[in-house]
Amino acid sequence: MNKKVKVTIWNEYRHEKTNVAVSDIYPEGIHGAIAQGLGEEFDIRIATLDDPEHGLTKARLDDTDVLLWWGHTAHQEVADEIVDRVVSRILQGMGVIFLHSAHHSKLFKKLMGTSCDLKWREVGEKERLWVIAPGHPIVAGIGDYFELEKEEMYGEFFDVPEPDQVVLLSWFEGGEVFRSGCCYTRGQGKIFYFRPGHEVYPTYHNKDVQRIIRNAAHWCAPVDRPPTGFGNAEPLEVLAANKN
Amino acid sequence: MNKKVKVTIWNEYRHEKTNVAVSDIYPEGIHGAIAQGLGEEFDIRIATLDDPEHGLTKARLDDTDVLLWWGHTAHQEVADEIVDRVVSRILQGMGVIFLHSAHHSKLFKKLMGTSCDLKWREVGEKERLWVIAPGHPIVAGIGDYFELEKEEMYGEFFDVPEPDQVVLLSWFEGGEVFRSGCCYTRGQGKIFYFRPGHEVYPTYHNKDVQRIIRNAAHWCAPVDRPPTGFGNAEPLEVLAANKN
Amino acid sequence: MNKKVKVTIWNEYRHEKTNVAVSDIYPEGIHGAIAQGLGEEFDIRIATLDDPEHGLTKARLDDTDVLLWWGHTAHQEVADEIVDRVVSRILQGMGVIFLHSAHHSKLFKKLMGTSCDLKWREVGEKERLWVIAPGHPIVAGIGDYFELEKEEMYGEFFDVPEPDQVVLLSWFEGGEVFRSGCCYTRGQGKIFYFRPGHEVYPTYHNKDVQRIIRNAAHWCAPVDRPPTGFGNAEPLEVLAANKN
Amino acid sequence: MNKKVKVTIWNEYRHEKTNVAVSDIYPEGIHGAIAQGLGEEFDIRIATLDDPEHGLTKARLDDTDVLLWWGHTAHQEVADEIVDRVVSRILQGMGVIFLHSAHHSKLFKKLMGTSCDLKWREVGEKERLWVIAPGHPIVAGIGDYFELEKEEMYGEFFDVPEPDQVVLLSWFEGGEVFRSGCCYTRGQGKIFYFRPGHEVYPTYHNKDVQRIIRNAAHWCAPVDRPPTGFGNAEPLEVLAANKN
Repeated sequence: MNKKVKVTIWNEYRHEKTNVAVSDIYPEGIHGAIAQGLGEEFDIRIATLDDPEHGLTKARLDDTDVLLWWGHTAHQEVADEIVDRVVSRILQGMGVIFLHSAHHSKLFKKLMGTSCDLKWREVGEKERLWVIAPGHPIVAGIGDYFELEKEEMYGEFFDVPEPDQVVLLSWFEGGEVFRSGCCYTRGQGKIFYFRPGHEVYPTYHNKDVQRIIRNAAHWCAPVDRPPTGFGNAEPLEVLAANKN
Repeated sequence: MNKKVKVTIWNEYRHEKTNVAVSDIYPEGIHGAIAQGLGEEFDIRIATLDDPEHGLTKARLDDTDVLLWWGHTAHQEVADEIVDRVVSRILQGMGVIFLHSAHHSKLFKKLMGTSCDLKWREVGEKERLWVIAPGHPIVAGIGDYFELEKEEMYGEFFDVPEPDQVVLLSWFEGGEVFRSGCCYTRGQGKIFYFRPGHEVYPTYHNKDVQRIIRNAAHWCAPVDRPPTGFGNAEPLEVLAANKN
Repeated sequence: MNKKVKVTIWNEYRHEKTNVAVSDIYPEGIHGAIAQGLGEEFDIRIATLDDPEHGLTKARLDDTDVLLWWGHTAHQEVADEIVDRVVSRILQGMGVIFLHSAHHSKLFKKLMGTSCDLKWREVGEKERLWVIAPGHPIVAGIGDYFELEKEEMYGEFFDVPEPDQVVLLSWFEGGEVFRSGCCYTRGQGKIFYFRPGHEVYPTYHNKDVQRIIRNAAHWCAPVDRPPTGFGNAEPLEVLAANKN
Repeated sequence: MNKKVKVTIWNEYRHEKTNVAVSDIYPEGIHGAIAQGLGEEFDIRIATLDDPEHGLTKARLDDTDVLLWWGHTAHQEVADEIVDRVVSRILQGMGVIFLHSAHHSKLFKKLMGTSCDLKWREVGEKERLWVIAPGHPIVAGIGDYFELEKEEMYGEFFDVPEPDQVVLLSWFEGGEVFRSGCCYTRGQGKIFYFRPGHEVYPTYHNKDVQRIIRNAAHWCAPVDRPPTGFGNAEPLEVLAANKN
């Protein structure tokens, strides 16, 4: 209980280098703002697309409790081999938080098994996120709703498997709704998809967004259990065929 | 995070006073064994049927994070008024763990809205409980399965609403299966139903059973949030009818 | 397959008698408009609050496959005994569709076990209902969304148990969202809650609303199975204790 | 409603050609027994691994409502391109029933996103399947349980995503349990995993097994709706930024 949760923030880290509208908001990278929002209660490391093995070596993953994933423009540059490695670690128990446009990352799509398509619009409209699971630890400290003055719109139908639980629903000024906080489990790994976070808006400086990411990082942390057994198994009872 | 979770163990506490087979196993009451299994990490109080207001005064409930409920022979003696009071507190966020025959308590039935009927047999047969949600915090520290040499059988169909999540399935020697660890949320309150615990077997002395109850008490603890708003609400946006 | 589903439409039938704004829209009662929308493919009967036993005799319920429920101003006049009778029939397999303000009926609250509270506002604002389960039979024939120009607003948090499936989400002009199509099962009975239908708007004349109610009435119809067994059960296998 | 559901039964069709123990039970192939069990109420076609494009041409898939899949020994011989084609068709609405060892097919694993591993044992022990969702159309006509005298054992933990609904739980003579009837939706396509069906036992001649497959084929059939819209979307409301 007392050990800090080990979080690896993975950021594509491309927009910040080429678009001044992004680097003005996130001078230390999107990962920098997310790290600041997580704060002292976590043991934080950074990994980016252009690091060797995208910063996701086996050693790094084995020493990660929860992975955060932000990507948008370069999903196709992520190596399939690394995706497979991360999936394998998730099934063993590592948690993962997918942020915003990570809905179209190779990793998310592989875990979901669907197209993960949706409607979208980028005009900087108002988003209001409503809590629909007020007993869930991911919304600790959050009121009935919170607002983001300008965000990209994502609209239903969101082509993902039925979540184990939806904790947040978004209302958009332009007329759409969206399941913006979705909980899943795959293998022993817990997954949270959290919608907001378009790169040209200061979303990751928002206190409610930061609180939800902190809460989700705790919720996603692995449970300490012996590895699950698979494969050929001896009977635990005497079978009728062997009783004589 | 550092404050102890406040647990109130409610026990009908009748079998122990009249049946030596029970008091031999639970000389300090079923609640005593459960309290011992919970241990130092919780702030524990006891309430029983024969206490004034069944030990469940408003003050006591307001100061309880998680209620445990064991009852069997005297469900009808629990006052409707107290049941309503406890339901109200659960909807506000108090967690509750229903143990074994609490499936037929007024409180559980009221929260479920169904008959909560099942098949049963009391011959002291073997039960083996299998983990089917290995990433869930309620099964931390539990292997693929654990066994109870002698238990009462509960068999499907268990007439309860579809659980939000089933974490344990039981195999019974006599040929039945059962959803033995069921998670629900009602209002802001989290609910766990945990099947084993017939009074004439030493189930609450079992280390795996104790571990699951400890895990569940943490999982059920309330989330710190402002109370949810209900009722007549002013619009958050300017309506078309008012735009001129 | 060829037999018509037997539908009983239960309507409180009070507003239509006292409020000309309602009777102008529903000259044959709200039940009349619903019946017209269901059409020839169902075997339809009407029951109202002021009928003897509210029109819900045991014989009538036993001969009903799917019950529709519209009520608003007189929930407290529904006799507890009749509520218990209906619950019992639902657990045995009768389907039920709760319409709009039926969320606060005794029957719905008893089945849910929660307060069923929500936020509301009655100013006649725009509602847009989005399909989030496009493979579900209840949304057959419905596009990505449909609109109601004027409706009462219901907003989250809606204090109901997590639905087995949510098929529709509402966007409201005033800034709220709502889970507007919720599927449940209680016992062998299937339940659908469908949000729209305030009495002073012509909602039940809307083609999409009518289509969803038709679809839901098919979906809710009972499954033909022998009654489930409950209670004391003989072992299906030879127990170790009896093997010598 | 009157048109027959178009079912394509896909069978690996290898064991029947090389193992007399299998061909004795299934002289017309496993697909032949399944087709016979489905009967006149469906429009049935057969496809096998050794057909050109495994019998799963685009034209065939476009003309299929529900695909059944039986495979075991040659999962790796199924071309990735065909798997992608089938996934795409499922997301558009085609239903699919995975039978027994199809849990390790490329197709099922791709849709699930997990390892789909489990425990197994092949000694011909007794399996008893319990209904835990008595209101679900897939168990129409089935009693509280049914038995298969000899089957292969599959045991938990079954590494699949949490099903939308579990309708059957298996008890095995050797001491294990299993979620044997699992419902999923992916995109607009409904998926049913049905556990029994090892090739050396006459499982597909069993009347209850046949009934469940028939029920599932109806349940999986596509819903008639316009295709879902995805991608860039114009606002449905006037945005504040454009109001002056």
